[in-house]
Amino acid sequence: MTPATPPTVQSPLAGPPRGFPAAEHESRIRRLIAILKRRKLDGAIITGSVARLYYTGLASSAGTLWVDAREGPVFVVDFRYIFKARAAIPFLPCLLQKRDSRDERRLMKQAGRWTRCGYEGQEPAATLARHRERLPSVTEWEDISPLILEQRAVKSPREQPALRRAIRANDDLLASLLPQLHPGLSEWEIRGLVRREADRLGQGEAFETIACAGANGAECHHEPGCDRLGPDQPLLLDFGLRLDHYCADLTRCIGFGRIARRYRDVHALVLAANRRAIAAIRPGMTGAEVDAVARDHLAKAGHGAAFGHGLGHGLGLEVHEAPAFSPTCETRIRPGMVLTVEPGVYLAGRLGIRIEDVVLITRDGCEVLSHSPHWIERPNS
Amino acid sequence: MTPATPPTVQSPLAGPPRGFPAAEHESRIRRLIAILKRRKLDGAIITGSVARLYYTGLASSAGTLWVDAREGPVFVVDFRYIFKARAAIPFLPCLLQKRDSRDERRLMKQAGRWTRCGYEGQEPAATLARHRERLPSVTEWEDISPLILEQRAVKSPREQPALRRAIRANDDLLASLLPQLHPGLSEWEIRGLVRREADRLGQGEAFETIACAGANGAECHHEPGCDRLGPDQPLLLDFGLRLDHYCADLTRCIGFGRIARRYRDVHALVLAANRRAIAAIRPGMTGAEVDAVARDHLAKAGHGAAFGHGLGHGLGLEVHEAPAFSPTCETRIRPGMVLTVEPGVYLAGRLGIRIEDVVLITRDGCEVLSHSPHWIERPNS
Repeated sequence: MTPATPPTVQSPLAGPPRGFPAAEHESRIRRLIAILKRRKLDGAIITGSVARLYYTGLASSAGTLWVDAREGPVFVVDFRYIFKARAAIPFLPCLLQKRDSRDERRLMKQAGRWTRCGYEGQEPAATLARHRERLPSVTEWEDISPLILEQRAVKSPREQPALRRAIRANDDLLASLLPQLHPGLSEWEIRGLVRREADRLGQGEAFETIACAGANGAECHHEPGCDRLGPDQPLLLDFGLRLDHYCADLTRCIGFGRIARRYRDVHALVLAANRRAIAAIRPGMTGAEVDAVARDHLAKAGHGAAFGHGLGHGLGLEVHEAPAFSPTCETRIRPGMVLTVEPGVYLAGRLGIRIEDVVLITRDGCEVLSHSPHWIERPNS
Repeated sequence: MTPATPPTVQSPLAGPPRGFPAAEHESRIRRLIAILKRRKLDGAIITGSVARLYYTGLASSAGTLWVDAREGPVFVVDFRYIFKARAAIPFLPCLLQKRDSRDERRLMKQAGRWTRCGYEGQEPAATLARHRERLPSVTEWEDISPLILEQRAVKSPREQPALRRAIRANDDLLASLLPQLHPGLSEWEIRGLVRREADRLGQGEAFETIACAGANGAECHHEPGCDRLGPDQPLLLDFGLRLDHYCADLTRCIGFGRIARRYRDVHALVLAANRRAIAAIRPGMTGAEVDAVARDHLAKAGHGAAFGHGLGHGLGLEVHEAPAFSPTCETRIRPGMVLTVEPGVYLAGRLGIRIEDVVLITRDGCEVLSHSPHWIERPNS
């Protein structure tokens, strides 16, 4: 199929998401089976789209991974995805979901021997109810979502470069966005520019871009609206593209024209909180301990109440995953985990500042994966 | 805030999503309370993002609607959304979620008197487990997701024009896309063009665009890849933008250059199945009965096995919602329901054809809301 004419899309596109070799998924499933055995579970039923992608490499809106701790896994999916599944998951038996088919009966016979079964607590309650009906032999159902999240939290040697690439592409996004930004644009138009770049440099946004003109930054999860960025105003941008299934996440404040002294002072304070937390990170600390470093710094400056959210969250296939840097997270961080560090100060009606980086926990501290400058000044025109 | 310079985004944007007046949400909550009373439930806990948007008008990733069947509803949300919630939901008390606060204790005292409580079965099993822990007084938990879906299935007089606008904008999307399409573009590039138009004419895609060059159409849920559309090939496009929270959904096949007789014949057959089903629709029929009209027509032509999915699905705030035109759906369709009609024939490795319209059930049949031509021919260059 030789192109008849040159494509109209001129800018290079990142292209469709690339996956990992089968070995990556096989190793993840082996670890899942080891977890099931440790918990003395006979099997597990995986129906969530993220876990499905994590264990099989298949991106789809349907499909169930049946994992028998002794006999191994089988993937079952309906007509719409069966071809795609067979191509994407050559290392597993992929069965067409069909009521009362021979395959289905064989599978039910096998799972019908289970007495202890794992399920994803993050999946719908109605799904669990259906599992219970189908497998009356199971007397104990264990929510294995926390165990799956724990497995996903430590990024493998193949995942780490994937996350690095996503985060680097997101830094590139900011760099190519900056010359396009100026007072006069509405938050909605700025959101549109971010999305266009995220489509070019990745496979789109990992989450809805937050763009706040001026004092709108005081609302952490402000929805971009019709307000226009004015001259001599700051812009808060919280955005992340998705590249090859992995999410980036970055927050920066950009000052246009002359920015008030007061704003700059609070910005310096938030940045110091970000820097201190990052400098303090050591494997073995709890999420709460890391959170406290930034929180205490802001509290000492009288802004404890103005920092109403956690310091950060795990980042990977989902934009929010385990563990968290938060006052209630007792998980001890380990090398290979990737988290955001995003202290903020929000003063309703006046200003809102958040500075977010992404760190990879290492053996003796952490490596900052995001490289965009922390304070950016741009002219009014 | 006068714009200092004209915006760089030249094309008119649909702008941020517009909601309904408070009266719409108040009336939806009143009907929910009537449903709870009918089911003799003391209250319900709504935590799903779609139900939250439906009942409150707030688009957010967090927040719980506590509905006491006698005392009325209260909305509780964390720090990140509290300002936004108070602005968006002026007709409800909006409380800041804070452990052990006075508001929280009062709410728990009130809900602590419930013995029968509704929950959303579509929400995580772990969420239900948390509800059970917090409300030990409740002895009966009822999954009210099917009742909420039933309420949502019949579109209100305000929702119907919103859906019409989304579907019309999606027809406009196709019209502005067509001149940009030509052999030589990859499926991925075509996806990018659809997304750009969906960002311009709506608030982005309602679902990931399916773009299939040539025989790739045989995979219903083909993921757009690097394959390029060749000359004298058909392109299958299944796409829908989201406008003001409502989803559009349309599938068309577009022939470039000279399209084989065989393909045209199957296309005519699928179109006839689409037309026949639409002509047969009457309120009071079950989803299965409508499905059978198209299915029988394809089966008579020897393509029964090649139509492996349901004929259609409800469309609204979600791209797939209740009811369904499918062999197993016993729901009787009613005026005000909006569904897709999308028969298809898939012959692996050879061709795939699907023709999808959207219909609004009326008192004596249905009105077709999608107006794009059913067969589109374009030159190779």
